[in-house]
Amino acid sequence: MNFYTRKLIKPEDLNANNTLFGGSLLRWLDEEAAIYAIIQLGTNKCVTKFMSEINFVSSARQGDIVELGIKAVAFGTTSLTLNCQVRNKITQKTILTIDKMVFVSVDDDGKPCPHGKTSITYTDERLRED
Amino acid sequence: MNFYTRKLIKPEDLNANNTLFGGSLLRWLDEEAAIYAIIQLGTNKCVTKFMSEINFVSSARQGDIVELGIKAVAFGTTSLTLNCQVRNKITQKTILTIDKMVFVSVDDDGKPCPHGKTSITYTDERLRED
Amino acid sequence: MNFYTRKLIKPEDLNANNTLFGGSLLRWLDEEAAIYAIIQLGTNKCVTKFMSEINFVSSARQGDIVELGIKAVAFGTTSLTLNCQVRNKITQKTILTIDKMVFVSVDDDGKPCPHGKTSITYTDERLRED
Amino acid sequence: MNFYTRKLIKPEDLNANNTLFGGSLLRWLDEEAAIYAIIQLGTNKCVTKFMSEINFVSSARQGDIVELGIKAVAFGTTSLTLNCQVRNKITQKTILTIDKMVFVSVDDDGKPCPHGKTSITYTDERLRED
Amino acid sequence: MNFYTRKLIKPEDLNANNTLFGGSLLRWLDEEAAIYAIIQLGTNKCVTKFMSEINFVSSARQGDIVELGIKAVAFGTTSLTLNCQVRNKITQKTILTIDKMVFVSVDDDGKPCPHGKTSITYTDERLRED
Amino acid sequence: MNFYTRKLIKPEDLNANNTLFGGSLLRWLDEEAAIYAIIQLGTNKCVTKFMSEINFVSSARQGDIVELGIKAVAFGTTSLTLNCQVRNKITQKTILTIDKMVFVSVDDDGKPCPHGKTSITYTDERLRED
Repeated sequence: MNFYTRKLIKPEDLNANNTLFGGSLLRWLDEEAAIYAIIQLGTNKCVTKFMSEINFVSSARQGDIVELGIKAVAFGTTSLTLNCQVRNKITQKTILTIDKMVFVSVDDDGKPCPHGKTSITYTDERLRED
Repeated sequence: MNFYTRKLIKPEDLNANNTLFGGSLLRWLDEEAAIYAIIQLGTNKCVTKFMSEINFVSSARQGDIVELGIKAVAFGTTSLTLNCQVRNKITQKTILTIDKMVFVSVDDDGKPCPHGKTSITYTDERLRED
Repeated sequence: MNFYTRKLIKPEDLNANNTLFGGSLLRWLDEEAAIYAIIQLGTNKCVTKFMSEINFVSSARQGDIVELGIKAVAFGTTSLTLNCQVRNKITQKTILTIDKMVFVSVDDDGKPCPHGKTSITYTDERLRED
Repeated sequence: MNFYTRKLIKPEDLNANNTLFGGSLLRWLDEEAAIYAIIQLGTNKCVTKFMSEINFVSSARQGDIVELGIKAVAFGTTSLTLNCQVRNKITQKTILTIDKMVFVSVDDDGKPCPHGKTSITYTDERLRED
Repeated sequence: MNFYTRKLIKPEDLNANNTLFGGSLLRWLDEEAAIYAIIQLGTNKCVTKFMSEINFVSSARQGDIVELGIKAVAFGTTSLTLNCQVRNKITQKTILTIDKMVFVSVDDDGKPCPHGKTSITYTDERLRED
Repeated sequence: MNFYTRKLIKPEDLNANNTLFGGSLLRWLDEEAAIYAIIQLGTNKCVTKFMSEINFVSSARQGDIVELGIKAVAFGTTSLTLNCQVRNKITQKTILTIDKMVFVSVDDDGKPCPHGKTSITYTDERLRED
């Protein structure tokens, strides 16, 4: 699993208990997963369809740095399944895990459509092919 | 299930496809569920611990009104399990469902602690008792 | 008066004195009133035209839950007048009141146009009629 | 009346009709008035207490520049009354007017306390005196 | 140099050290400079092209009021060069300086195009001419 | 140079011309550079002190993915100098470059203090040493 996007927790990210607001974390993660799906499927036309169980393993505080990790685990005809983990960048302690996050490729009417991919496309290779 | 909080979808809530950004929706829902948990458990000291599968049933667009529904389904010693649904206020079409969203009552060190509740406390009744 | 939307006050909602920023409160209330007007008038094409005196009766702090109440008080040919109140969900203490908030139905050029409603339309009934 | 703060209307400031969201405008104005009050009263400890009628005279669109004008109109023992106007910077067309916006100087417990000012203090003079 | 827009530093503007987040300051300044450029060039079609060295001279804290100053220093065929300063409104202490911030007038394809201005246009005069 | 954090451009990130708002880009970059500096210097107590010239080489649009790259180029006694680049993730086209971005390690009073580092610390190695 590769970890790309990082976030520094600022006051605007806190809940009323002054720990990281879970809703902000889910917002960051949904954006990161969408980016991963867009890169793999080669299209902006893909939407979040399903998330499996989410475990909030530990919390985080102002000043902590968190990093978001995503890995493709299955390619369906119209879907892409991702595995996600968020951890503290410094301590490596897990903050949140999601086993499966499913994105679906859609056409202009929002209906599922085949994406034609069967395995992970590395950005560099894809760029060389184009 | 009661539906309280409503949102009018504005440009700031859209993803790059100009439909409702899933991450924003999860952010709204986590806040609404936290409010519900705080009212039921009678304490601000409670945190999101777990979410079961999330189904993104349909999407929403700029100008749509969505409403968020929450219902308590189980009281544990330190936990409270909620059932959540988001739907379009006008068409009543379901947008998202979450079977179980678990909040845990915590002490000052963030450790789970008993909340002492065993059934739904209606706000009005609770206020009369106080 | 029905109270629907609730807000949990987080650090991002505070002013420089660490109490609820009045501007955030007005922003929440304008959205909630717009939602109410859209539901009653059956059109998204309506704009805030006027607010009567606003009394900031008491303040609120981080961790407080506030709820927003709206009630229709008069239907004009092109306008709808609402009465608004914001209160602390737990203590029921009033935070802010606005006697009259007037929305106007507009056409595509932004000119007032008749909305054809003369009384409160309950969402459920309206949906049954459709 | 002096006009200081200006805003360029961006997509994040729009309502569902793609015109300026009234709630955002009120948020900007409350901050600008608070700044004016803090400068005049020489203390950060002042809160919005009351706003008289608000007229939304005309709207604004993406790309428009609006400017916010504030003027002190009365000094009470614990209060300061301001007159506010928002207009389009280029066309000078009025967007919103508020006759009276009242701020009150408060002590550490949030209780009104005398501010000791009786007339407009120009920033430059005040700085020379200090 | 004229100082127009002012900001009251609230919790949402802080970094993880509870001082003003530099990124927020740059965001405010880029908007203010864009407003200045739009007014001078008489067109919304202008983009930030270059900034010279930025010195973060001193910091600011929650409750501080900062003001943003901009001055046109050179008119090119397609460009406008601005000089910028941010200071504490009360103490007048400099917070940030930028010697040159260059905006370029662009056509519908984003290509530089002549703006036809050679000196500062005072808003009032320009409005009288129109 | 390593590229970590990525952003998907959504409506909330656009300027009034519907291209990426430069101020948002600078806000993202300042956070990413702060994260890099915190990791290298092993302390949260570091602040942005200086940025050299910023070139806005090309723009970006809604739906584009941008990635932020940072590299340490010099360690001073109290300072750390970074080199930054932002590019389009898909086309690899450069969007913005900054030759030098200087962070300074500070003590509790905000005064510069030695950070004791002389070369790049790879996160993994550092974690093994701890």
